[in-house]
Amino acid sequence: SIQDSDLIILALPISQIINFMSKIKNISKSKSLIIDVGSTKLKIAKKADELKLNFVGTHPLAGSEKKGLAFSSDELFNNSKVLITPTKNTDKRAVSKIKLFWKRLNAQTVIFSPKHHDKILSYTSHLPHLTAFCLINSIPKDFLAFGASGLKDTTRIALSDVQIWSDIILSNRKELLNSLSSFEKQIKDLKRIIQKGNNKQLIQILKKSKNKRRIIV
Amino acid sequence: SIQDSDLIILALPISQIINFMSKIKNISKSKSLIIDVGSTKLKIAKKADELKLNFVGTHPLAGSEKKGLAFSSDELFNNSKVLITPTKNTDKRAVSKIKLFWKRLNAQTVIFSPKHHDKILSYTSHLPHLTAFCLINSIPKDFLAFGASGLKDTTRIALSDVQIWSDIILSNRKELLNSLSSFEKQIKDLKRIIQKGNNKQLIQILKKSKNKRRIIV
Repeated sequence: SIQDSDLIILALPISQIINFMSKIKNISKSKSLIIDVGSTKLKIAKKADELKLNFVGTHPLAGSEKKGLAFSSDELFNNSKVLITPTKNTDKRAVSKIKLFWKRLNAQTVIFSPKHHDKILSYTSHLPHLTAFCLINSIPKDFLAFGASGLKDTTRIALSDVQIWSDIILSNRKELLNSLSSFEKQIKDLKRIIQKGNNKQLIQILKKSKNKRRIIV
Repeated sequence: SIQDSDLIILALPISQIINFMSKIKNISKSKSLIIDVGSTKLKIAKKADELKLNFVGTHPLAGSEKKGLAFSSDELFNNSKVLITPTKNTDKRAVSKIKLFWKRLNAQTVIFSPKHHDKILSYTSHLPHLTAFCLINSIPKDFLAFGASGLKDTTRIALSDVQIWSDIILSNRKELLNSLSSFEKQIKDLKRIIQKGNNKQLIQILKKSKNKRRIIV
């Protein structure tokens, strides 16, 4: 039971993690170490500090659009990164324990502040989800049968859980609006180049994009 | 040699296909049947009509961002669609022959006008490429190390050949600017919903996106 647990892992949509933190404050023993695996960290960190929980925020960069036991894997965290997001109130020994916990699952741990975490992820994860949602919604339904592997891969994450993702988006609004503006500017610039039919500038953009994408191969 | 060929397949970037069509007019025998496998069809179809070539436009929806013999596969066209785009001047027996050619490679053939082909593909293929290029270009370089499978899949096609894609984009400008505007509107609408923090509307958009994406699984 929760009362007797040494380690409690909150694996829920962000809004439910935050609700659960208040409840858990009263029912867990004072030495219980609590972590979460949510995709945004600042709101959760603030709540943990406010409640003075024995808490460490973590975010394993692993998983897919699928959920449930049927898609579990004991190799899920192999070669993955786990971002750990302590605040100035987080117990240092608790952070060490949690780093070890994730390392035992073959993950590599990286420490960030909750705010910096949310900024990075707004670009590397939340923005790609928004573009996938918008991409599929902008295509006339009758045309979808003529999509090949490019369309499939660019929109796979549009199959993600709706509740989990509405929570992620709304809990990281400020950073996400910045990353979205950065993306809109790229679209606008590219559109202007296409309108002008400027082959040289177009090739420059495509080259830049290809070289940047190579970094994450 | 080209002089003696019964079937000539033009597999080049669009601008080179168009240049080559003029040359081939003079060097191929009059009975040579010429096809191309380019990703946009209207400009090529116009050139074929203008030159009165014995020509059938085709577009196999197969392949990846990789190119060259090292990535060839005798199963490439299995279960794929091939779009065939005759004009009113295209010989009907030539179309039948070419349908059979692609069927023997295990592809399913679909007939469209060149113009309708270019409209459909502007949404299902060219737009996803543009969003991939812009997505990767909008992410600060230092953040790329923290991309997981979502970012990888949404931007894989940013690794595509630069010359092939600048030609596709510029040869389908009109349709592509329309699909791009449709996408920009989705982004703008979603941005407003995020700004307002409207959870109900956000969930509606995410559900619509998920349901549409299921069509192409």
